Amino acid sequence: MLTLYDYLDSGNGYKVRLLLAQLGTPYKLVELDIMQGATRTPEFLAKNPNGRIPTLELEDGTFLAESNAIVWYLAEGTRFVPADRLGRAKALQWMFFEQYSHEPYVATPRFILRHLPADSARRTELATRQAQGRAAFGVMEAHLAKHDFLAGNYSVADIVLYAYSHRADEAGIDLTPFLAVRAWLARVAAQPGHVPMLP
Amino acid sequence: MLTLYDYLDSGNGYKVRLLLAQLGTPYKLVELDIMQGATRTPEFLAKNPNGRIPTLELEDGTFLAESNAIVWYLAEGTRFVPADRLGRAKALQWMFFEQYSHEPYVATPRFILRHLPADSARRTELATRQAQGRAAFGVMEAHLAKHDFLAGNYSVADIVLYAYSHRADEAGIDLTPFLAVRAWLARVAAQPGHVPMLP
Repeated sequence: MLTLYDYLDSGNGYKVRLLLAQLGTPYKLVELDIMQGATRTPEFLAKNPNGRIPTLELEDGTFLAESNAIVWYLAEGTRFVPADRLGRAKALQWMFFEQYSHEPYVATPRFILRHLPADSARRTELATRQAQGRAAFGVMEAHLAKHDFLAGNYSVADIVLYAYSHRADEAGIDLTPFLAVRAWLARVAAQPGHVPMLP
Repeated sequence: MLTLYDYLDSGNGYKVRLLLAQLGTPYKLVELDIMQGATRTPEFLAKNPNGRIPTLELEDGTFLAESNAIVWYLAEGTRFVPADRLGRAKALQWMFFEQYSHEPYVATPRFILRHLPADSARRTELATRQAQGRAAFGVMEAHLAKHDFLAGNYSVADIVLYAYSHRADEAGIDLTPFLAVRAWLARVAAQPGHVPMLP
């Protein structure tokens, strides 16, 4: 059976849990408290030298890191990855956009607000990060005003961008102006087999 | 013919140019001066709403963005993408690592040092970013001490991580302690069809 090393409040981990639920694939969950350094122990660093969750352990003992690579691995050959070459590239385009232009500006301000003390020096980063987060939602809005999903049908691209987008309020980003993004969030949440981020 | 919108001093663009050279694929290069706002014009934003190079225009007029997604698109089905599912996932793992844990801490300090004025306020970011860049090279070093390449044979994973790694000195990051990374840089540069970043 697959083993997922994860932290339940992580959107990166939620991507994998949501996909596994929609695939109907059973797995063992090992919860690690990232706030207590559980991903920086020698034992965990032997599993993932980059010290991050989610990390997936395959049945043969191989470890796979990076949430979007794990999602791709699990979804390849299923209806969640486009069947054509250009479709796959478009899905990956949105997945790289997620890691470079969205996650640092939505997930990181959420982390600062939700997990660091109210007097954290990192609060000075918030305004700049939130502005870039709104820019990322602007890019998504322009696409979603014309398309139901990000890369053809509902796919891994929607799963990975949904994870932190649906918690944008916790990052201090108001999605009210982003009508198409909000309609897309509702469409994603209505997909068969959808599960919430937290039990 | 493919058209590549690019800026020659960009490592992200170089990933695509290096792969196209090794594939022997002809293309038209359109140089854009990102320092003069050429990627923020309405004309270019219609091609890539995220306003970044490289952007690839396919023969049918479709535009593809995100350097690593472009690289994947061009390399799929060739010797530069592993033929097995786990190999592809491992290649993608390093490609997502590149965008999240390497590029902001190697490419960005390089950009600050090379393209912004000496009195730029962004110089205050350098020490923190360079420390994270060294951490990323530490992760690569541990892997490359045991393997010749990042994901099996020479692949897209090596191409995308080579692009900014071989210019780490310009980011103020000294690779002297990273023996295995330096040996890998030499192996990548010795691959058939290799071309330098700048003509």
